[in-house]
Amino acid sequence: MRVVQKAVEAAVLSGTKTKVAVVGASGYTGEELVRLLLAHPHVDLVAATSRQLAGKALAEVFPRFSHHKVAAALQFSNPDPKQIAHEAGVVFLALPHGLAAEFAKPLLSAGARVVDLSADFRTKDAAVYQEFYGHDHAAPDLLGQSIYGLPEIYREKIRDAKLVACPGCYPTSILIPLRPLIRRRAIDRKTILVASMSGVTGAGRKVETDYLFSECNESVRPYAVPKHRHLSEIEQELSILAGEKIVIQFTPHLVPVNRGIVTTICADIASNVVNMDPAVIFSGAYGEEPFVRLLGQERLPDTKNVVGTNFIDIAWKIDKRTHRLVVMSAIDNIVKGASGQAVQCMNLMLGFPETAGLI
Amino acid sequence: MRVVQKAVEAAVLSGTKTKVAVVGASGYTGEELVRLLLAHPHVDLVAATSRQLAGKALAEVFPRFSHHKVAAALQFSNPDPKQIAHEAGVVFLALPHGLAAEFAKPLLSAGARVVDLSADFRTKDAAVYQEFYGHDHAAPDLLGQSIYGLPEIYREKIRDAKLVACPGCYPTSILIPLRPLIRRRAIDRKTILVASMSGVTGAGRKVETDYLFSECNESVRPYAVPKHRHLSEIEQELSILAGEKIVIQFTPHLVPVNRGIVTTICADIASNVVNMDPAVIFSGAYGEEPFVRLLGQERLPDTKNVVGTNFIDIAWKIDKRTHRLVVMSAIDNIVKGASGQAVQCMNLMLGFPETAGLI
Amino acid sequence: MRVVQKAVEAAVLSGTKTKVAVVGASGYTGEELVRLLLAHPHVDLVAATSRQLAGKALAEVFPRFSHHKVAAALQFSNPDPKQIAHEAGVVFLALPHGLAAEFAKPLLSAGARVVDLSADFRTKDAAVYQEFYGHDHAAPDLLGQSIYGLPEIYREKIRDAKLVACPGCYPTSILIPLRPLIRRRAIDRKTILVASMSGVTGAGRKVETDYLFSECNESVRPYAVPKHRHLSEIEQELSILAGEKIVIQFTPHLVPVNRGIVTTICADIASNVVNMDPAVIFSGAYGEEPFVRLLGQERLPDTKNVVGTNFIDIAWKIDKRTHRLVVMSAIDNIVKGASGQAVQCMNLMLGFPETAGLI
Amino acid sequence: MRVVQKAVEAAVLSGTKTKVAVVGASGYTGEELVRLLLAHPHVDLVAATSRQLAGKALAEVFPRFSHHKVAAALQFSNPDPKQIAHEAGVVFLALPHGLAAEFAKPLLSAGARVVDLSADFRTKDAAVYQEFYGHDHAAPDLLGQSIYGLPEIYREKIRDAKLVACPGCYPTSILIPLRPLIRRRAIDRKTILVASMSGVTGAGRKVETDYLFSECNESVRPYAVPKHRHLSEIEQELSILAGEKIVIQFTPHLVPVNRGIVTTICADIASNVVNMDPAVIFSGAYGEEPFVRLLGQERLPDTKNVVGTNFIDIAWKIDKRTHRLVVMSAIDNIVKGASGQAVQCMNLMLGFPETAGLI
Repeated sequence: MRVVQKAVEAAVLSGTKTKVAVVGASGYTGEELVRLLLAHPHVDLVAATSRQLAGKALAEVFPRFSHHKVAAALQFSNPDPKQIAHEAGVVFLALPHGLAAEFAKPLLSAGARVVDLSADFRTKDAAVYQEFYGHDHAAPDLLGQSIYGLPEIYREKIRDAKLVACPGCYPTSILIPLRPLIRRRAIDRKTILVASMSGVTGAGRKVETDYLFSECNESVRPYAVPKHRHLSEIEQELSILAGEKIVIQFTPHLVPVNRGIVTTICADIASNVVNMDPAVIFSGAYGEEPFVRLLGQERLPDTKNVVGTNFIDIAWKIDKRTHRLVVMSAIDNIVKGASGQAVQCMNLMLGFPETAGLI
Repeated sequence: MRVVQKAVEAAVLSGTKTKVAVVGASGYTGEELVRLLLAHPHVDLVAATSRQLAGKALAEVFPRFSHHKVAAALQFSNPDPKQIAHEAGVVFLALPHGLAAEFAKPLLSAGARVVDLSADFRTKDAAVYQEFYGHDHAAPDLLGQSIYGLPEIYREKIRDAKLVACPGCYPTSILIPLRPLIRRRAIDRKTILVASMSGVTGAGRKVETDYLFSECNESVRPYAVPKHRHLSEIEQELSILAGEKIVIQFTPHLVPVNRGIVTTICADIASNVVNMDPAVIFSGAYGEEPFVRLLGQERLPDTKNVVGTNFIDIAWKIDKRTHRLVVMSAIDNIVKGASGQAVQCMNLMLGFPETAGLI
Repeated sequence: MRVVQKAVEAAVLSGTKTKVAVVGASGYTGEELVRLLLAHPHVDLVAATSRQLAGKALAEVFPRFSHHKVAAALQFSNPDPKQIAHEAGVVFLALPHGLAAEFAKPLLSAGARVVDLSADFRTKDAAVYQEFYGHDHAAPDLLGQSIYGLPEIYREKIRDAKLVACPGCYPTSILIPLRPLIRRRAIDRKTILVASMSGVTGAGRKVETDYLFSECNESVRPYAVPKHRHLSEIEQELSILAGEKIVIQFTPHLVPVNRGIVTTICADIASNVVNMDPAVIFSGAYGEEPFVRLLGQERLPDTKNVVGTNFIDIAWKIDKRTHRLVVMSAIDNIVKGASGQAVQCMNLMLGFPETAGLI
Repeated sequence: MRVVQKAVEAAVLSGTKTKVAVVGASGYTGEELVRLLLAHPHVDLVAATSRQLAGKALAEVFPRFSHHKVAAALQFSNPDPKQIAHEAGVVFLALPHGLAAEFAKPLLSAGARVVDLSADFRTKDAAVYQEFYGHDHAAPDLLGQSIYGLPEIYREKIRDAKLVACPGCYPTSILIPLRPLIRRRAIDRKTILVASMSGVTGAGRKVETDYLFSECNESVRPYAVPKHRHLSEIEQELSILAGEKIVIQFTPHLVPVNRGIVTTICADIASNVVNMDPAVIFSGAYGEEPFVRLLGQERLPDTKNVVGTNFIDIAWKIDKRTHRLVVMSAIDNIVKGASGQAVQCMNLMLGFPETAGLI
């Protein structure tokens, strides 16, 4: 590692940039990856793929980048794993689940490092994947080597990973707040209930009636109750942290904002805990984390404070009436919940400063 | 009662209308009362008060009513309880808490029947009121005679009431779904957790920075955690239904829609319940209710289906993984959560068809 | 006419209702027609067609009507013109342009009266239709007998019409304000510039990327510049009113609201006009109109005052600096701009009070 | 100038940063200035004033900056011109009109350079100011020395200015597109009509009923018709460009987005112009401008492509039917329309790269 790090530092200093590619760049997470990578000081975006948009310049499809020379020059290409692995050292997959697994295999074989934003490599167990996603896994042999891309838990493993599975947006908003509480046995693990509210980009750029403006505007609705797909990775990671099987209640809701997730977690304070001080627990866990902002118990999170950023804001309240702890978080589902976190992982993988291109 | 009913029917048939007034008609619930009462087939709106707007025609202040003859002719007046009680048989109070109690007293003394939309007469206990609202109650002697205006629970008592305390918007969305579950002992009463999302009219027409467009739009946020004022009436009514003290967890969130509340309730299925069928429980309780729509376990509520109406939509899911029941409801916070429910109560009080002016 | 009217009055009094049908009821205008017709005191909705939804109950597809007995019982059917003409006396066509003309023919032949909400019968000239809509007209022989369904201009002709072509939403918002100004020669006809802003339902329930929530929310954009299709009917009607060819400038914009159009019209005050008083002109033209509300020059229109209603609000300002007249209007594009106006026309055709089911 | 530039370059290279201050930092433009200045590579924000917020840390008031060390450390202070001029070389005034003029005077006297975002120094004529703003100018003697801060017109003068008057948001969106058309005499100057749509931050953080969420959401409305205050500076600048008095028609509308202005300009093509090619005109004028993006006549602007950026997007259509030119622009009213443009001006004043901190 030391040697790698030195080489990277030398490269950064010398101005040599790492070449990166985005496979499946037409959706919201793909577009956000393009935004972040175009502005990143240490990488060059050399390829962006989309079967549907092949031949069009990025600047044409995404007019907000039209002033950017690379976006004006670079055209969407058809995805050819060999070619991409040849061109880019790190490849981001912003593909639908199922398809991502198919692409990861040849990319890894050809020597690329892969940061996957789909759900394909998040669960360690192909059977659980099948249960939640409804089809067989396309590359079950790779499940063992993927690293769950949550730097707040797996920072060191991410540095050396060949294949990173970026967490889902809801899991990010849930796991970061819960991790220190589980580890410190501060809450009763059987009583964890989570309600989340997500903006509509969370559904991706899916062209379906349910996501039309006039169907979402002036509408608030729960969905995917009671078994949202993200439960598979949330419970897997909580169980690993706890060293025992954890099952939670999770109710997501769709609300009319473009971006942002608020998550509210309630749990019984563990019966043997006296005078719990969440501030101590959270500060101990996250005092040094570059993207975790602890609001304490005086303030409450608001998506508008994190939208466009890679931060997660965390607040908490002890409810003396019910002996429960209420923890609330806010993230931008497309940044910390997807593309920003993917870049954060890439920064770790390439030895860049973790916040490069993100603050 | 029979005699009263006959007299009312005669009046309705003969076209004689009951005179009604709205005290504090400048806010969102006041405006919605005006809308509903102007269109009501059996009442005449004879007075609407607002110190600030006194002298202006309703049509001037609320341009959406400008075509309506009564709205064009009727001016906001200064609130004079004696005068109002003289003019109107039923008086709606759409005042801030504290102020409502002050007005109710002289109105009742002067013989008017009062439908109060504030929180002043919802709790039976002046000490609880003081705890949650932060000031002494202005008319504690009236607490004993007020009826909680939730027709789905107190229909018969409302018919004869002199003073009706309309429930808060959150309580309406929570109590109707929970009532049959509590009564039938279907859930563990110690495990009730509620998350709600409300549109911004829920805050009233308060001119505060927090409710400016640019502060609410593209924003999602919890607030009043963990002890929202509505807990006082929610827990009071649940405790009455249960015959024992019930304490719940309640987390409200503000979301950028004008109107609508979605409430998601989770609770452990009672340990002694085998093969619970919520459809049977809800149909038994609400099969004949004119404003309760049971969506069953196949569909989920959406505020856009109830906005502008007096309906509450209720859906449920049994979560076999967690042995919990998830119940979800949607209402329009200003209609079923306030002014519509107030008119529903008035219909009961005056012997009109319960749905008059509301469907 | 007298005899017809008497018969209608007798029918209304006796409670006999006219049977009506909606062909193409799955879009926003179709759904709004269903809403208005279900609540209409003098008609029975006996059929609603949609190839895609055939076999499903209206209440299932449109949950907001789920409490309504007819909506629960009536299923979408496949559109069979003969069958529909047999069942219903008045048939509304809420179909895409092109398709509407195909359906109108057999319906008329079978004796039904037709209210068409598409663009197919608005232009009198098949060549103009071809120019603006890009395909040949399917029933050019019917163009001569259709009546443009703007009651504020063609009230008497609508009463006897067999085929009514309801105006587009923009044309409604433009023609009503311009009509008296053109007639009274108050403005220079060569200097009419119109800018309009429309809510997203104006695009229909089209499942296209452009109309996804996250593409429309926080977005304002002009479109269809400089030759929007509605120009064909706007200029046709203005030219008829003027007795000479009128060409206008029209720039529509898409704004993130569900419903509502604001139109701002500017024109030079005619050079020979001295001391123009628009209040006199507008009051003279529309003082008795049931759905035109004149705001005068002190107030400005706001879509929120007309949404959900069949009203058009009109305001004006004389700009002394520029010698121009600025006239502004607001309508609900789905009500006065489509389905409400269609019902208004039906009321005229069937001799009902013009406001029946609309106020 | 050469010498100054060299000194600046040396300072930039050596890492010495210029100290800057924001007076009146509590509103939307103030907050955006803070955001831009905190991220700017060549300046240090050393003071932010607000009477109301004095003593609170910036990070406390603006939670979105809470991770930033300067925002956490720097407290709002009471505005003391002498002290500020002592601390900062460039001072931004984000104050209400009237107040800004009062502050500019002592700041300039004390040697600070001032970038004013209010309307106070935009008009050259104190009488015009009085006409449009309704009160006497507080520092009419300074009007002569202020430079109108539109770099696309006054770049060279801004470099040496002591007092820059940043244009209003509407004027920016109107003047940049019109400038080359006026200069090249491409349009008939008497026929310029402008319709604009602005997001609600355009009204500032004013706590008034009109700007509450539930009053703006689902609302579209014209306002300030026909004589919006910005007309004074628009017509002044157009007249300077033309060398003759120009009067235009301008109709602004409020639409429910946080940020963004779309402006649509229509004008008769000048009668002596044959085969006008706007692409040539606009490319000639703005081909090298760093913040002007020319969309051409194939694409149309959309606020969502410019929000959060300092770009102005410009598109055009020749309407052959009407012999008019339609030009459309989109900006972020708070960035290019206010704070971003102010920073662009500062970059010019201090000899930094013009895009520093803005791309």
